[in-house]
Amino acid sequence: MTQDTTLDAVLDRLDRGLDAALDRLCAFLRIPSISTDPAHAGDVRAAAEWLRDELAGLGFDASIRDTAGHPMVVARSQPGGARPLLFYGHYDVQPVDPLSLWDRPPFDPLIDDTPDGKVIRARGASDDKGQLMTFVEAFRAWRDVHGELPSDLILLFEGEEESGSPSLRPFLRDNADELRASLAMICDTELFGGTRPAIVTQLRGLVGEEVVIRGADRDLHSGLFGGLAANPIMVLAQALAALKDADGRVTLPGFYDGVQDLTPDLRRDWESLGFDAGAMLGRVGLSDPIGERGRTPVEMAWNRPTAEINGIAGGYAGEGFKTVLPAEARAKVSFRLTGTQDPAAIRAAFRDHVRGFLPPDCTVEFHEHGGSPASVMDTSDPAFTAARRALGDEWGQDAAFIGSGGSIPIAGDFKSILGMDSMLVGFARDDDRIHSPNEKYDVNSFAKGARSWARIIAALR
Amino acid sequence: MTQDTTLDAVLDRLDRGLDAALDRLCAFLRIPSISTDPAHAGDVRAAAEWLRDELAGLGFDASIRDTAGHPMVVARSQPGGARPLLFYGHYDVQPVDPLSLWDRPPFDPLIDDTPDGKVIRARGASDDKGQLMTFVEAFRAWRDVHGELPSDLILLFEGEEESGSPSLRPFLRDNADELRASLAMICDTELFGGTRPAIVTQLRGLVGEEVVIRGADRDLHSGLFGGLAANPIMVLAQALAALKDADGRVTLPGFYDGVQDLTPDLRRDWESLGFDAGAMLGRVGLSDPIGERGRTPVEMAWNRPTAEINGIAGGYAGEGFKTVLPAEARAKVSFRLTGTQDPAAIRAAFRDHVRGFLPPDCTVEFHEHGGSPASVMDTSDPAFTAARRALGDEWGQDAAFIGSGGSIPIAGDFKSILGMDSMLVGFARDDDRIHSPNEKYDVNSFAKGARSWARIIAALR
Repeated sequence: MTQDTTLDAVLDRLDRGLDAALDRLCAFLRIPSISTDPAHAGDVRAAAEWLRDELAGLGFDASIRDTAGHPMVVARSQPGGARPLLFYGHYDVQPVDPLSLWDRPPFDPLIDDTPDGKVIRARGASDDKGQLMTFVEAFRAWRDVHGELPSDLILLFEGEEESGSPSLRPFLRDNADELRASLAMICDTELFGGTRPAIVTQLRGLVGEEVVIRGADRDLHSGLFGGLAANPIMVLAQALAALKDADGRVTLPGFYDGVQDLTPDLRRDWESLGFDAGAMLGRVGLSDPIGERGRTPVEMAWNRPTAEINGIAGGYAGEGFKTVLPAEARAKVSFRLTGTQDPAAIRAAFRDHVRGFLPPDCTVEFHEHGGSPASVMDTSDPAFTAARRALGDEWGQDAAFIGSGGSIPIAGDFKSILGMDSMLVGFARDDDRIHSPNEKYDVNSFAKGARSWARIIAALR
Repeated sequence: MTQDTTLDAVLDRLDRGLDAALDRLCAFLRIPSISTDPAHAGDVRAAAEWLRDELAGLGFDASIRDTAGHPMVVARSQPGGARPLLFYGHYDVQPVDPLSLWDRPPFDPLIDDTPDGKVIRARGASDDKGQLMTFVEAFRAWRDVHGELPSDLILLFEGEEESGSPSLRPFLRDNADELRASLAMICDTELFGGTRPAIVTQLRGLVGEEVVIRGADRDLHSGLFGGLAANPIMVLAQALAALKDADGRVTLPGFYDGVQDLTPDLRRDWESLGFDAGAMLGRVGLSDPIGERGRTPVEMAWNRPTAEINGIAGGYAGEGFKTVLPAEARAKVSFRLTGTQDPAAIRAAFRDHVRGFLPPDCTVEFHEHGGSPASVMDTSDPAFTAARRALGDEWGQDAAFIGSGGSIPIAGDFKSILGMDSMLVGFARDDDRIHSPNEKYDVNSFAKGARSWARIIAALR
């Protein structure tokens, strides 16, 4: 068979095997592998064992690898291909509360007909069991047609993604030689606009900081002390308010060091996407993009850094009113980074900024909550061109090279620890309700997702 | 007997009756009249009944007067004096939690010897049952010596002061003719510096506001929306931070309308008091008075208005970190007023100020939490001079005319509803731990407090 002929056979095999593949996915979805809830630790392990058994059955050298938290599942096909490829997904899921908002039990999956096509209803259907299984079904069909798995595949499936991946970095460090590949394929993202295939080629980085400002050693009576004693909430408000200027730019000295303007090519590409900020905001009750003066919405969402206050607390905030002058106030602040912005330098600049607002009677304490630089993939790697073409063949329209305003720390970890770029391709849709009640995954996403991977593997093997 | 001779007899009677008076106070203190806790509603009424019975036993025409909340106790002596005087106190007490921090049961009073003299230990000993009973014991001794009560006394004892006095204003309005006097004596304040008698002649007013700023109709992912969607915490921080300028002055237009500088006399008086802001701040872990540039600490504490943030909340403020871009943020803000500042105008200016910071996608909601103007007593009333002299005779040093940074709404209500000034005289000390575990009242405060009222009544009858 020629390569095209064998690929057609693999795709045909996937189509004919769809019902059986859905049965397997449903079995996987029945395991309530909620990683953040200690009561479900046994279920998380059961999901790892289910995966290990599936992969071993396909001919992978598969094993469960214990960590300080939930285990990793690692599997390898036979060595000897053109270049090793790593495939990453996660088998743990988000909690399901509030259960009362679900239309059916979250771990009793159902294939349901809807006016927009069939969907798989269950917690984890989209995030990330359904997406992870697009890999596995592509490998299975490949093996069925070729008689053997594609060579040089490394599979790494994590069980702690929904609870902050505490074991991932140590595991990558301890097993770097085994896991290092030429490229990591990550299936945990969305189609663009719900229908167009997309490869995320840049992700914003993140600096998380918690700041606590303290004044008196107790809450004071605001009548007796108001006007005399420093008010930590006011100090905090002044420090936070001054983080941005009237043009929406972050004021920290050196903040924009390393931020790169879009290349003309990428600007043209992104402008052609029809990124609809109005529609995106409209879905959450908003209408006007704010942000930096003189920047387009797509640029602000994907290629501009920002500062956000994620939480604030201090004094009395319950029912009614208490005239306290509080002893302390705290806030959680995060910065999204682009280009080569340095998380450590930005953290230091933020701390200096806050200290500059402290009156003599106040102290400040900082807590670090993660830091990772932006990820910008080298799209000149021919694998990107090949994958783009393969996705275009499957979906009938060109794959978009897009950015993401979010931070997918695993991509940064693969780069910093293993020295490899990531290719983020996923088939979720923005109405999949991931992390919310009534999560679903389109059968179309699942079926064409597996076909997409078969095409990409064929292009890269 | 001459007036001086009969006064001496009343004072002597108080001294000899001190132990019996302490027994009566202890019986009163055993009733756990916590007004804010519905479980103690019966105890609050029992305290009212105890008081009514005490007053009726002294010859007052005393009654319990029901309200929508806890009852008032109202009592009158025979009419016919020079001018009617009203005496106000409250018989309810603060909650006692956390009980574990008390050295002994809060409603099992004990007279305890300490290196600084005897103290009465119990919840309410100082605030306000012990102070209220200084009135009652003075009336008792007067009656014992004169054979009858002083004429034209109106007693009004409230059972909701510690829970915001919701029934007080309606009660004053509904019973204005009965309660209107030439002057109200309020016993719920402190000695100055713990030893010097003091009459509070001005109180700051208060405007309480809660502000809620809303953006999207749900919490957003700060990666996907950060830089595009308005952040209600940032909007709130910017509005609050801009309430004060670099000199510590409140920036609201017209805010200082009606604020009066100290008269040279009052400035001299206050400067001679030795108001020790450093010591006051030192007791709560602070050292440097902040506030308006160019104003003295005593002036800032008593005669300058201020703005304070009493509480703030928004987004995720629990353990760890969540990168939400929150749907809403809220704060409680209070203004202390002096002179003739208008609460309604200041509330309106604050609301306009906040609205000026709203981006198009945010809405704001305000909740009113009380408003009262400052109270400035007419100290040219000869009653003030007479009371000052009477207090000086008892305590061996001149009574100070002082201000208070706090707001005692009852004084404003007496003025606005009944048209009468208040004379605030109290004998508490700043180490009495009112509202806290291990409340106490000095026996010296109790004994000399009752003697002080006997002297003041003699001077005013």
